[in-house]
Amino acid sequence: MQTRLVPISDERSLLYIAGQVSADGDQMLAGRCPDEVDVEEATRRARLCGLRVLAQIDAAVGLDRVEAMAQVLGYVNCTPDFGDQPKVMNGASDLFVQVLGEAGKHTRAALGTNALPFNVTIEIAAVAVVRTR
Amino acid sequence: MQTRLVPISDERSLLYIAGQVSADGDQMLAGRCPDEVDVEEATRRARLCGLRVLAQIDAAVGLDRVEAMAQVLGYVNCTPDFGDQPKVMNGASDLFVQVLGEAGKHTRAALGTNALPFNVTIEIAAVAVVRTR
Amino acid sequence: MQTRLVPISDERSLLYIAGQVSADGDQMLAGRCPDEVDVEEATRRARLCGLRVLAQIDAAVGLDRVEAMAQVLGYVNCTPDFGDQPKVMNGASDLFVQVLGEAGKHTRAALGTNALPFNVTIEIAAVAVVRTR
Repeated sequence: MQTRLVPISDERSLLYIAGQVSADGDQMLAGRCPDEVDVEEATRRARLCGLRVLAQIDAAVGLDRVEAMAQVLGYVNCTPDFGDQPKVMNGASDLFVQVLGEAGKHTRAALGTNALPFNVTIEIAAVAVVRTR
Repeated sequence: MQTRLVPISDERSLLYIAGQVSADGDQMLAGRCPDEVDVEEATRRARLCGLRVLAQIDAAVGLDRVEAMAQVLGYVNCTPDFGDQPKVMNGASDLFVQVLGEAGKHTRAALGTNALPFNVTIEIAAVAVVRTR
Repeated sequence: MQTRLVPISDERSLLYIAGQVSADGDQMLAGRCPDEVDVEEATRRARLCGLRVLAQIDAAVGLDRVEAMAQVLGYVNCTPDFGDQPKVMNGASDLFVQVLGEAGKHTRAALGTNALPFNVTIEIAAVAVVRTR
């Protein structure tokens, strides 16, 4: 499932969001950073990936119910010598703050990896806190 | 420790489960997918790895107390060009639903990596919601 | 942000801690294990990385308020044939127990990766349970 709601009080829940891959509609955005996909394009893909995270939250509870993005785990498909994962992941992080304001601020781990599903460039999993009443 | 119980109400807790590696008893199931271990065998190993996750939950609180698998982080030791991590991880995901039914459904991040402990093929960490009263 | 506090009762909160990279002051501790950085040095860097996790907890709520380290996700920048991630990560895990005692015990996923921000050797993200009253 794409999201799991875990009540933590009468009014609030944790919302776990499944790993979202970089895609544009049905089109997977594949390729390794930076030799196949440059940093600018990878950053744009991180933003698109962030949009999919937001879309899952919206479908589950509505974006207006987000109290806080708690945790963002961001994986960048990259070469071993690549070290600009934080810059790439800012594509998603900046989006969360633009859309949600203070509630969009989050703790983040920006990570590299040698491989992702369908060879996509970015995968992001997240945990949010949402109002459920 | 293999599990940590975090009460979130008088009746329910989060149960964090440490990363479980693919093994059969004491025998580590090592090797990279798909050049050393094919997709079918990797999927079988993901299932065995999922069994170890369930065994940890059972030892901690009993499987009958699982209310929901909240989050599954699954790492597949693989080559850079491998993109079938979701297919491999279904070995564990399908198991969770077979054993736990609706409660076994979960949010998942299927990820690739170049290296895992003892060169195992699969590692899975998870968070479950369990009844503690 | 470096930490996010999520209340789970009147008295306790989850504290999410952003991915901390291995560094000594402003100096990033970069290099891949074990060909550029040996296991002993990587283990020392994992300990330094763990100190940064503790520093973030201390800045957020004070170390004396930690009730439990719930989850530690530890990534070791390494070669594909490296399998001693648990040994390396013990640098951080042992520290948590030395400083926090029983509360420092945690569930851990020790993982390998081909790349981390700034080519650092170690990155650790964590979730703690803290008293907030």
